Amino acid sequence: MAAKAPSPVSPLAPAGGFPDLPRIEGVRYAAAEAGVRYAGRLDVTLVEISAGASMAGVFTRSSTRAAPVLWCQEKLAASGGVSDGAGFGIVVNSGNANAFTGSNGREAVEATANAAANALGIPADHVFPASTGVIGEPLPAERITAKMAELRQGLDAEAASDAARAIMTTDTFPKGAAARVELDGVPVSIAGFAKGSGMIAPDMATMLVFLFTDAAISPDVLQGMVDRVNATTFNCITVDGDTSTSDSLLLAATGKAAMPAITDRGDPRARAFEKALSGVMLDLAHQVVRDGEGATKFVEIRVTGASSKSAARKTGLAIANSPLVKTAIAGEDPNWGRIVMAVGKSGQKADRDRLSIRFGDILVAENGWVSPGYSEAEGAAYMRNASLMIGVDLGVGRSSATVWTCDLTHRYIEINADYRS
Amino acid sequence: MAAKAPSPVSPLAPAGGFPDLPRIEGVRYAAAEAGVRYAGRLDVTLVEISAGASMAGVFTRSSTRAAPVLWCQEKLAASGGVSDGAGFGIVVNSGNANAFTGSNGREAVEATANAAANALGIPADHVFPASTGVIGEPLPAERITAKMAELRQGLDAEAASDAARAIMTTDTFPKGAAARVELDGVPVSIAGFAKGSGMIAPDMATMLVFLFTDAAISPDVLQGMVDRVNATTFNCITVDGDTSTSDSLLLAATGKAAMPAITDRGDPRARAFEKALSGVMLDLAHQVVRDGEGATKFVEIRVTGASSKSAARKTGLAIANSPLVKTAIAGEDPNWGRIVMAVGKSGQKADRDRLSIRFGDILVAENGWVSPGYSEAEGAAYMRNASLMIGVDLGVGRSSATVWTCDLTHRYIEINADYRS
Repeated sequence: MAAKAPSPVSPLAPAGGFPDLPRIEGVRYAAAEAGVRYAGRLDVTLVEISAGASMAGVFTRSSTRAAPVLWCQEKLAASGGVSDGAGFGIVVNSGNANAFTGSNGREAVEATANAAANALGIPADHVFPASTGVIGEPLPAERITAKMAELRQGLDAEAASDAARAIMTTDTFPKGAAARVELDGVPVSIAGFAKGSGMIAPDMATMLVFLFTDAAISPDVLQGMVDRVNATTFNCITVDGDTSTSDSLLLAATGKAAMPAITDRGDPRARAFEKALSGVMLDLAHQVVRDGEGATKFVEIRVTGASSKSAARKTGLAIANSPLVKTAIAGEDPNWGRIVMAVGKSGQKADRDRLSIRFGDILVAENGWVSPGYSEAEGAAYMRNASLMIGVDLGVGRSSATVWTCDLTHRYIEINADYRS
Repeated sequence: MAAKAPSPVSPLAPAGGFPDLPRIEGVRYAAAEAGVRYAGRLDVTLVEISAGASMAGVFTRSSTRAAPVLWCQEKLAASGGVSDGAGFGIVVNSGNANAFTGSNGREAVEATANAAANALGIPADHVFPASTGVIGEPLPAERITAKMAELRQGLDAEAASDAARAIMTTDTFPKGAAARVELDGVPVSIAGFAKGSGMIAPDMATMLVFLFTDAAISPDVLQGMVDRVNATTFNCITVDGDTSTSDSLLLAATGKAAMPAITDRGDPRARAFEKALSGVMLDLAHQVVRDGEGATKFVEIRVTGASSKSAARKTGLAIANSPLVKTAIAGEDPNWGRIVMAVGKSGQKADRDRLSIRFGDILVAENGWVSPGYSEAEGAAYMRNASLMIGVDLGVGRSSATVWTCDLTHRYIEINADYRS
């Protein structure tokens, strides 16, 4: 609906640009210009995943989920993430979310999945479609299916960077991350890319995330890993508190590495892999926040002393989603009173008279009042940093959580209000 | 902490200016310049309420409630709202919220309440203090107590307008409303004033509200009325989703009207009075939204077809608090996809394929897709109105709720980010 103005690259973009993603045996990518909404840009991606792979995923909890999300959830549940003799496929378009599109939405998903299935020689229910872009307009599936032969021709194990670009919407930079880890001496790789910069809040954040590894891991163990790591990474970021209809994360494990499969969560290799996976997912989640619409500050909020992990996370998100906190950060104002307000509104248990607040290493408030040693000048100097850490101890327990967010600026308003279709 | 720039009067301010509030027998007001934070403006108010009055109130549910709120809750619970032979007093300052001020906060409340009690000749626990302004700075109570003799001298039944001005912070206009109702032929009046324009969200919204009537109503019946009416007025508005540490609403009934007291909720006069009270409270609540920081649009969101009243209200607030919806409204963009998103993220039951959306009388979407008769041009024309109605039917039940909000504009960012102390 609203057309997006071209945006300069976020000042918080990673310095090194898009990373060199490692080749994942059994995975090939292709991207093409299908003109789904805009001409002259990559906007459709096809990924081929080899036979024998495991698949796991998490999806938005929105009650108005888009058609491709419903398809993915249904097919993943049916197959249990087991590819058997066939492989898997992923087909993604940007420019149109295929959300709130009635029966047309399901038909467009079927057409796209069938075309990708034919191109890859696999059953349609092994294809996972994802769409991102405007809500409420019919997806011109024929523009995607018309490109399927070209996409199949272009499949290339080195083309992850093109795939990452093709799925962007209001993103100002493509987002990639990777890790290498040895499992009992066998090196395995993880590569992932993501998109997302607005409509970002947990459950899931408004994002598409695709992860690949050559490790051999059974689908149930893989799904458990994704669920646990997602809870402390993508579900702990927020840009604007708005949850998309389309969020999807998929992780494919091809099993091409020379290792016996991990089939038990208790396997020591599972722990090592999960740690590496967590690093990749956290990196991508941070990149989404750094590309938050209009963001000029990357903010980590560490909540400690909470009565439960859930209370800590909810308090952190109440702070991270508060427009008054976010505008104070944009204005480099060390306005800790607004943090007190946000703690109070979270609905979570806190002891006003034991509450303490830190900006980085600076103790700002303690025991229910401003700290005797704190000076406003010191706080103001700290707020000029591009990356900020706000620490809040609730004084009622031993649980903690960390969430990440960005500031709320004029640019956010410009991106979302000033430009019309 | 952050200094506020002087604001032009909201374009949504009521055309007639501050209304002529009726004289309430048994109530006198005074305002003075105490220099709590800024010189040269009225910033402290004293209200005297006659012996025999009933008092009722509702307060913020924040876990970081300010010292005066804790005092009011404690004293109101102790007295049950019964003044006995003594009357009540209200003392309010702007410029400093006396919130998160440790033991100093309680001492400042005691000093202020004692001084007001001496001035009015009533016990200190019959005085209700309220403070609004910056959080985390000690309240200079001595500046208020030094003005108490002047305030007592100035008490005047006609001075409600000064009182309404003295309690303003970032408000761009004073807010007043009144009603007259006959109870079995006896005319009674209700007069009220309020402040609030940012940090506005339910439980309560960030506001101070003071209401007075000459009706004779027992405290328990009065409290029940306030609770019920508050649920559909002040707890159904939001500007920025941020909940204050200091919200307070007090309603005093002096009983000076020539009527037998209402002591039973079932009394038919109770119904008539509650209806009139509801009108006054809704009027004040709407004025707070109209003065929302940076607001250029007044937005009513009517949710129908919900599974419960609570689900309807939560869905309405999810829409009203969505930054993407609020910025679309600011940009006059009929972006109904963002409303679908907000319905989805609310966590409340909705049937995606029975969902319908209206802008005023325009049917925008129905049965899970854009309505065949809807044109984007028609929607865009409607969005240019200063007052908007967004209707959402969730298609799952028969419950409904209405909430009110404003748009999110550059001016909100300016007010809250651009100006530093």
